[in-house]
Amino acid sequence: MLQSQFLTKVKKEAPKDEKSINAQFLTRAGFIYKEMAGVYTFLPLGLRVLRKIENIIREEMEKIGGKEISMTIFQPKSLWQETGRWQGGMGEIMYRCDEEIGLGPTHEEMLTDIIRHYVNSYRDLPQYIFQIQTKFRKELRAKSGLLRGREFSMKDLYSFHSSQQDFLKYYKKVITSYFRIFKRCGLEALVTQASGGDFTKDFTHEFQVLTPDGEDTIIYCPKKHFSKNTEVADVKKDQKCPLCQNFLKEGKAVEVGNIFPLGVKYSEAMKAYFTDKDGQKKPIIMGCYGIGPSRTMGTVVEIHHDEKGIIWPKEIAPFQMHLIKVENNSKVNKIANKIYQDLQKQGVEVLYDDRNEKTAGQKFAEADLIGIPWRVVVSEKTLQRNSVEIKKRDKNSLKLIKITQIAKYVK
Amino acid sequence: MLQSQFLTKVKKEAPKDEKSINAQFLTRAGFIYKEMAGVYTFLPLGLRVLRKIENIIREEMEKIGGKEISMTIFQPKSLWQETGRWQGGMGEIMYRCDEEIGLGPTHEEMLTDIIRHYVNSYRDLPQYIFQIQTKFRKELRAKSGLLRGREFSMKDLYSFHSSQQDFLKYYKKVITSYFRIFKRCGLEALVTQASGGDFTKDFTHEFQVLTPDGEDTIIYCPKKHFSKNTEVADVKKDQKCPLCQNFLKEGKAVEVGNIFPLGVKYSEAMKAYFTDKDGQKKPIIMGCYGIGPSRTMGTVVEIHHDEKGIIWPKEIAPFQMHLIKVENNSKVNKIANKIYQDLQKQGVEVLYDDRNEKTAGQKFAEADLIGIPWRVVVSEKTLQRNSVEIKKRDKNSLKLIKITQIAKYVK
Repeated sequence: MLQSQFLTKVKKEAPKDEKSINAQFLTRAGFIYKEMAGVYTFLPLGLRVLRKIENIIREEMEKIGGKEISMTIFQPKSLWQETGRWQGGMGEIMYRCDEEIGLGPTHEEMLTDIIRHYVNSYRDLPQYIFQIQTKFRKELRAKSGLLRGREFSMKDLYSFHSSQQDFLKYYKKVITSYFRIFKRCGLEALVTQASGGDFTKDFTHEFQVLTPDGEDTIIYCPKKHFSKNTEVADVKKDQKCPLCQNFLKEGKAVEVGNIFPLGVKYSEAMKAYFTDKDGQKKPIIMGCYGIGPSRTMGTVVEIHHDEKGIIWPKEIAPFQMHLIKVENNSKVNKIANKIYQDLQKQGVEVLYDDRNEKTAGQKFAEADLIGIPWRVVVSEKTLQRNSVEIKKRDKNSLKLIKITQIAKYVK
Repeated sequence: MLQSQFLTKVKKEAPKDEKSINAQFLTRAGFIYKEMAGVYTFLPLGLRVLRKIENIIREEMEKIGGKEISMTIFQPKSLWQETGRWQGGMGEIMYRCDEEIGLGPTHEEMLTDIIRHYVNSYRDLPQYIFQIQTKFRKELRAKSGLLRGREFSMKDLYSFHSSQQDFLKYYKKVITSYFRIFKRCGLEALVTQASGGDFTKDFTHEFQVLTPDGEDTIIYCPKKHFSKNTEVADVKKDQKCPLCQNFLKEGKAVEVGNIFPLGVKYSEAMKAYFTDKDGQKKPIIMGCYGIGPSRTMGTVVEIHHDEKGIIWPKEIAPFQMHLIKVENNSKVNKIANKIYQDLQKQGVEVLYDDRNEKTAGQKFAEADLIGIPWRVVVSEKTLQRNSVEIKKRDKNSLKLIKITQIAKYVK
C-alpha cells in the first residue's frame, strides 16, 4: 500500500477525551476513528489488524470442529421472553429498536432456537457452532478505547452435547485452543475462575491478560497455578499458592476471552430436547465461549508499545514491512519502487512510504507510531553498495543488508 | 464438509409465510433461517455463498483502487442533522435506539465526516473507500426473502474527487467493475436510468436483473441500448429504441446495484472542503455505489433454479462438488472416504454425503435442492471399473469417469 495515497494522516495529538493508551495510539496512527463513546470505525490500517485477529480465531475454531454461521443483530422479544432475559440481566444492557426488537448483546436464545429446529436425536450431537459478528451492549463506562465497546466485534462459539462428559472434554479442548489464539496474537493469558453473571450459576473461566489499565482485579500465582477474579476469590494476595507455595499476587487485568458451562439453563427454558439412545427425551447440554477480536486488538496495544508508539506482534501486524525512501531523486525513487514491486510479488505485505513532502525524521517518527515489525530504509548512500538499512521496530540496532536479501529477512 | 455432521437438515416443506422462490429454496435446503420478516441468519451453507459473493466484490473493488474500512452501525444524530436527513427521507426508514443513535441505513454522513477530518488539499484526492457491512432499514414490505431485508449485507463504495471530470472517469470505471461482478455471480444486469430518491436530485443508474418476481418495472431495449425504470421513463413498451429501432419491452426486475452521482450535496452541507491548486476552497465532489451481497444471493436463486431446486453458478456455489456414496459397505465407504480426502488435498471444495440412513433417491433429491454444480456418485458397480458417475446439476447426462480424473473435471 502506498502511503502517498492513504486516506488517513498521522496526528500529533490524540483527542482529549481519549485517556486509554490503546485509543490514543490507534487514533493518532489512523487505525480507528471514534464515532461516539465505545463506538469506533476501523480505518484501512485498523481493519487489516482486526481481520488478521479474526482469521486466527476462525482458523483455530475450525481446527476444533467449529462450523461458522452468521446470526442476525436483530433479536425477537419472543425468544428472550422464553428464557426470562428480556427484562433484567442481559436484557438490561440490551439496546432496543422498538417494543419487539433488541440488538444482540449475546446469542444463546437465537442459536438455541435454531438448534431445537434441527436437532432431534443424540445422533445429531455434538454440534460446535460459531460466528464472528457485531454485538451491542449498553455500557456506562465505555472510556477505554477498544477495551470496552458499546458496538464491538465478538466471536462466540456455542457447543451442544448429549452428556456432561462429552461437554467437559470439549470444554478442555477450547481452553487449549484459546491459549493458542492468544499466543498467536502476542498475548499471555491466565485462566481465571470467575462468577457466571447472568449466563450461569456455576463458576466460569475468564482469560485475563495482566495490564495496569485493566478493569478487572485478579489474584494469581506467579507460576500460573492459581488465578481467581477478586469477585469470587477466597484468598488474598500474599497468601500462598495452594500448589507451589509461592506468594499470590494481585493485579489489574483485561478479560480477553471467557468460557461458560451453561448446563441446561437455556435448553430447558426453550425446550431444546434430544432423544437419547434409550429413547428418553433430555435437555441438550450447552457451553458458550467468547473472544472479542476488537478488545484483543486494544489489549495488544496496551501490552506492546513504548513511548514512541505501537509494536505489533508479527502475526497480526497490519503489514510485515515498512519500506521508507528518505530522498526524492530519480535513482532512489526508481530502486525503492522496484523493491516495493518485487517484495509484493514475493508475498511480503509492504507499506511503502513513498511520500516526498516529509523529512526522514518525520517518516521514522510516524513509522514508530504505526509499529510495523520491520523497517527498511532506502537511501542513496546505501544504494551505492546495493544495500538497504533494516531495523526491527523494538530493537535499536541497524543492519545493512543486500537488496536481494530483504524478503528472507522479513518473512 | 461431512453431511453426517451437518447442523441443518433439508426440509420437505417451506415455511408457509415464505412466498418467494429464493426464500423457499434457501430455507428448505438449509442456507438461511428466518428470524423475523426480512431478517435472516446465514447457516453454514448460506454463509459460504455469501462470503464468496463478498469476496468477488472485494477483489473487484480493490482492482479499481478501493480501500476497505468498516464503519459502525451506530450513527450519531448530530451528523444526520448536518445534512437535514435525521427527519424525513432516509431518516424515515432509519431504526433508532434512542434519541441520539440511529442504525445506519446508509453511510454518506459518516464517511463525509471522516473525509473532512483527513482531506485538506487536492493532493489528498481522489479517494475510493468501501466497506462490506450490515445495514438496517424499516421496510414495510419485507416479504421477498433475501430480495428485501430489514437487516441486510451491503457493499458501499464512496468516491471523492476534486473535479467533475475526475468523478465521471471513475463513475464509468465502476460501471465496468459492476458488470464484471454480476457476471462472476452468474447475473446479467441492465444499467437502468432511475430517480435519485433521497440521495441526489440527479438521475442515477441502477443495475437491474430481469425476473418475474422483481419489485421494479423497467422499460428496456432487447439489445440493451436503452433501459429506464418506469418511475422516470418517458417512453412506453412497444415504442422503438432510439438507437436500434427495435421495439422496447417492459419487465419486472430486481435492483442488485446502484450508482449515484452525489455531487456536492453532502460535502457542502457538512463543510467537507479541499484547497485546490489555485488556493481556492471548494466542496469535494462525491459519488456512491452500492451492491447488496445478500440480495445478489437471493436474485441468483430467482434466476438459477428449476422445479427441483437451486442451480448455483460455479464461482459462488457453496461447494464445487457434491460427493455422494449410495451404498453402505466397507468397500464403498473406504473408497469414497479416500476420494473425499484426496480431492480436498487437491483443493477441490467437496460436500460429502457420507450418511447411511438415507436412500440414493433421497440423497439425489436433496442434492438437487442444494444445487452444487457437479455431482459425483460412488457405487459398488462402477468401482469395479475404478470409475464413478459424474453429472452436472443442470444436465441430465451421466458420464462414467476414472477416479483419478475427478479433480480435473470439476475444476
